[in-house]
Amino acid sequence: MTSLDTLIKDLSRLPGIGPKSATRLAYHLLKSDPSYNRNLAEEIATIQERIKPCSVCGNYTETDPCSICSDPNREQTIICVVEEPQDVLTLQASGAFDGLYHVLGGAISPLDGIGPERLSFGKLMKRIREGSFSEVIIATNPTEEGDTTALYLRHLLKDHPAITVTRLASGLPIGGDLEYADRVTVSRSLRGRVSF
Amino acid sequence: MTSLDTLIKDLSRLPGIGPKSATRLAYHLLKSDPSYNRNLAEEIATIQERIKPCSVCGNYTETDPCSICSDPNREQTIICVVEEPQDVLTLQASGAFDGLYHVLGGAISPLDGIGPERLSFGKLMKRIREGSFSEVIIATNPTEEGDTTALYLRHLLKDHPAITVTRLASGLPIGGDLEYADRVTVSRSLRGRVSF
Repeated sequence: MTSLDTLIKDLSRLPGIGPKSATRLAYHLLKSDPSYNRNLAEEIATIQERIKPCSVCGNYTETDPCSICSDPNREQTIICVVEEPQDVLTLQASGAFDGLYHVLGGAISPLDGIGPERLSFGKLMKRIREGSFSEVIIATNPTEEGDTTALYLRHLLKDHPAITVTRLASGLPIGGDLEYADRVTVSRSLRGRVSF
Repeated sequence: MTSLDTLIKDLSRLPGIGPKSATRLAYHLLKSDPSYNRNLAEEIATIQERIKPCSVCGNYTETDPCSICSDPNREQTIICVVEEPQDVLTLQASGAFDGLYHVLGGAISPLDGIGPERLSFGKLMKRIREGSFSEVIIATNPTEEGDTTALYLRHLLKDHPAITVTRLASGLPIGGDLEYADRVTVSRSLRGRVSF
């Protein structure tokens, strides 16, 4: 196996990169500016040392606690619980949330052997006991695993009757077309219809 | 800009990788096995030192001359001229060609300022003068640039009347559907129709 084959093989292990894309990327790297390759290699080699989970919320960060947890201007009484660090990025990009986050590190999935003990529920409940939250927004994915995780968390929060528990609305994506929406989405958007 | 932003920015400079895919790749690298990241980084950093153009044909190779140029079992009288090293990979994968190759390093494209002097025509004509080729297969892309390059090469080969000059057939892709073929492809497949 040549160096080129090895590079193609390793690139094709990345998500969304098949053998054809990997080949294209490898040939691109062969023609790239050498300083680009050096920088990219250095960044890949050191990313896990530079970026670590925030000890408070679990989001990836270069400083600990992360910039969101340590920002006194954010709303300290609302916490949004997500599955993965990427979800924080997505919610932040929406500009519609100004509270704190908690990253569970996944969703409950018995088939994959992921029970609640593998996720950071303990840390979350400690934050809730010690903090002064009035609302927990459950922002797990609208999937079977995300739903299970949301139900489990709602159950845990029964011990905190003063806290409002909410979940992100499900329904038709904005800009989407009713005709092309899947049946489950349409059914959810009907059940969750709002007065207008 | 954090290390994560830098990594995402550099990943999104790769062909076919937009900002969303780059973000997905970066988060994947954060969770990957550290040894995978180290290996991939090392491969990217060193690929240009390990793999260089073959001094004979211009294809990328770890040994010089490349394994194709130095293989005495390949047909030494037919040479297939391609634009890019990737094209050698594609033709080799077809299993339908057993001769030698010559990589031009691109196609003539006046709009991009690429004239014949930027491509390895000189080296090719030297190989043809010194070799014993009976056929040159022009395998440039069926695009405007590829066509221009093919015409230019056919002109150069006028000085070698003993050499047969051919070009890859254009037409309907196998497994494709006539209904979905573009007009130019259909028109070429009509003009190039073969007795059946």
